[in-house]
Amino acid sequence: MVGAGVDQWVGAVMVRYAALIAAGTVVATAGCTTLRATGDLGLVVERATGSVQVVDTSQRAPLAQITGLGDLSHASVVYSRDQRYGYVFGRDGGLTKVDLLRGRVDKRVVQAGNAIGGAISQDGRVVAVSNYQPGGVKLFDADSLALLAEIPATFGGEGKRSKVVGLVDAPGRRFVCSLYDGDEIWLIDARDPRKPGVTKFSGVGKQPYDGTVTPDGRFYIAGLFGEDGLALVDLWHPDRGARRILRGYGRGEQALPVYKMPHLDSWAMAGGRAFVPAAGRHEVLVIDMQTWKEAARISVAGQPIFVVARPDGRQVWVNYALPNNDVVQVIDTETAQIVKTLKPGKAVLHLEFTPRGEAVWLSVRDENRVEVYDTETFERVAQLTAAKPSGIFFTSRAHRIGL
Amino acid sequence: MVGAGVDQWVGAVMVRYAALIAAGTVVATAGCTTLRATGDLGLVVERATGSVQVVDTSQRAPLAQITGLGDLSHASVVYSRDQRYGYVFGRDGGLTKVDLLRGRVDKRVVQAGNAIGGAISQDGRVVAVSNYQPGGVKLFDADSLALLAEIPATFGGEGKRSKVVGLVDAPGRRFVCSLYDGDEIWLIDARDPRKPGVTKFSGVGKQPYDGTVTPDGRFYIAGLFGEDGLALVDLWHPDRGARRILRGYGRGEQALPVYKMPHLDSWAMAGGRAFVPAAGRHEVLVIDMQTWKEAARISVAGQPIFVVARPDGRQVWVNYALPNNDVVQVIDTETAQIVKTLKPGKAVLHLEFTPRGEAVWLSVRDENRVEVYDTETFERVAQLTAAKPSGIFFTSRAHRIGL
Repeated sequence: MVGAGVDQWVGAVMVRYAALIAAGTVVATAGCTTLRATGDLGLVVERATGSVQVVDTSQRAPLAQITGLGDLSHASVVYSRDQRYGYVFGRDGGLTKVDLLRGRVDKRVVQAGNAIGGAISQDGRVVAVSNYQPGGVKLFDADSLALLAEIPATFGGEGKRSKVVGLVDAPGRRFVCSLYDGDEIWLIDARDPRKPGVTKFSGVGKQPYDGTVTPDGRFYIAGLFGEDGLALVDLWHPDRGARRILRGYGRGEQALPVYKMPHLDSWAMAGGRAFVPAAGRHEVLVIDMQTWKEAARISVAGQPIFVVARPDGRQVWVNYALPNNDVVQVIDTETAQIVKTLKPGKAVLHLEFTPRGEAVWLSVRDENRVEVYDTETFERVAQLTAAKPSGIFFTSRAHRIGL
Repeated sequence: MVGAGVDQWVGAVMVRYAALIAAGTVVATAGCTTLRATGDLGLVVERATGSVQVVDTSQRAPLAQITGLGDLSHASVVYSRDQRYGYVFGRDGGLTKVDLLRGRVDKRVVQAGNAIGGAISQDGRVVAVSNYQPGGVKLFDADSLALLAEIPATFGGEGKRSKVVGLVDAPGRRFVCSLYDGDEIWLIDARDPRKPGVTKFSGVGKQPYDGTVTPDGRFYIAGLFGEDGLALVDLWHPDRGARRILRGYGRGEQALPVYKMPHLDSWAMAGGRAFVPAAGRHEVLVIDMQTWKEAARISVAGQPIFVVARPDGRQVWVNYALPNNDVVQVIDTETAQIVKTLKPGKAVLHLEFTPRGEAVWLSVRDENRVEVYDTETFERVAQLTAAKPSGIFFTSRAHRIGL
């Protein structure tokens, strides 16, 4: 369903938006009459059309569509601390600040040739972007998108630049990222964002391909593409350096194609244990966070991509790579048993819980829809139309550490 | 400083607000020109004047004052899921819904003769209030404040009604509360809020005087006024009933006056341990949350009232009862050492962290001001004028469980 099919479909969506606008229900055009807050809003990435939809999680309804965001493959979003603006990180180096209240692009810069995600500082003043080409991190003023600093990811003695991956924020107005080609983890002190400081951890392992930080912002963990295991840095004690954990993570298997590697930005922590997608296996790993050793393995319906905890930690929800990407499973964290298997449709790409966890939103790309489930009854409670939806990001992320 | 002093002072504040309004910086009056979101806003309770101030944590500035809220002794606030409205629970049974965008009262009911706090359901649709007189819980529609159900706190065989305390929300659209006179803990199922179900735990211990739930919504804990120890209910397994923990909580001391009892709505959880105010002693207790046994005691500067964890769990901040209520201390959670002692001024009543913890706001009642500290440098970064401020509540609470 690429090409004409999508175009027709997008045309139909546009007609629908026009109707909503005429009815005065779209934020973008209703002006003063739509004074509202944004705590229950979010953005759904529509990859094929380079657009995002503003959605309302109270009404379970679309509010506006914002177009012109470029290549949104693998796009992600962080939010301003007032939750009015979303910063959308596109694959083509585009950084777009969208205004959820006015339903339009506020500012946009194309800041690199090829990029992969970003983060916003603890105080909300600095947006950082992780670039492949040219490799490095750029810091921008969150208000104006003015460039504050560029940190080239140079490594070794010859001035080579590495792709940068796994960029997250950490407490103390810091960022952390990994150098895929440089085998390093960098801790960036952005308290003075025009003169950032960098602490480098070298030899962390071969080809860190993604990274995450625990929800408290303490432990940064990078997945390794070039070898078995993960790299761990305790940000409370950076002087202790990086160490290797879970050397049996991939059980010595052959390196897998990148498109099958699980996301590491979504580790689920519950009851002192982390639930982690195994690399290339039909398993979710359970890790004891006191010892950082494997505590259990749970057999699941495919190669897990996202393993996400419901905000109360009672459940984790899992989606899968092809050919099992039509399935979503729910694991009870106490018993480590699968308690529900759902088949929402073709290509479930992402899932996002409402802030207090009563519902979960799933993007079902190849069905051109977003589905909403009650997490207690597992009943589908709403469906929304969207153009090839991928990532779903709610504004409550503004208040979370390590995204 | 009651009476004329306060009146003069309030007059001065009003003049200041008038100037702000004239300058067009107050939300309440600026209408369409002040389209804004509320993710970085909060309410400061001004007890002596029955008012709340709307504050902006990005600008560290006041936005509006909302008056006419009645007796705000011991008042607390929860937020609508869109973060536009605050529900203020007054001591006189007043339930006031305030509109942060318009800076005014949206709706107000006086729903009991004497009340103590409340909560909002996981889905944001139901507001529950905990009443002393007549003893019970009332459920209201969060939008209209229409009464949905009344749950009289009757106990024993003679139809007596108990004061209700420690009311919190829990996952699954439930509420939990304690019956002070009935020695019971009640689990209220509000999925159908017009016909709530109640599960009762009796004989939990003498006179539960306050209660809290862990941030994941799993464990409800009530403090006992009439005996040593605490009552614990595992909400994942209500069939297991209530059990007694920390029998040495007060070390067998005489019962203390209620006004010195610590708040139990603020337990700080970090690294699998809880940091808890000891009842009537100059100590903070450290509890191992796997075993629910005491792991350590930390000597502090007074009888602790609030013990609150910075959102990343690295620090807990503590304030104290008279005669030490001019002091605030900071404990490092890893070492259990006090790393800073501050003296903000007379009567530090409450403290609230910004959502990601870069700053903390303190109400210094007898100095008529709110102070803001950088949590990394411990420097005071702002001061705001407020009329006898007590509780401070930021809108990010809308997205948290168990408040």
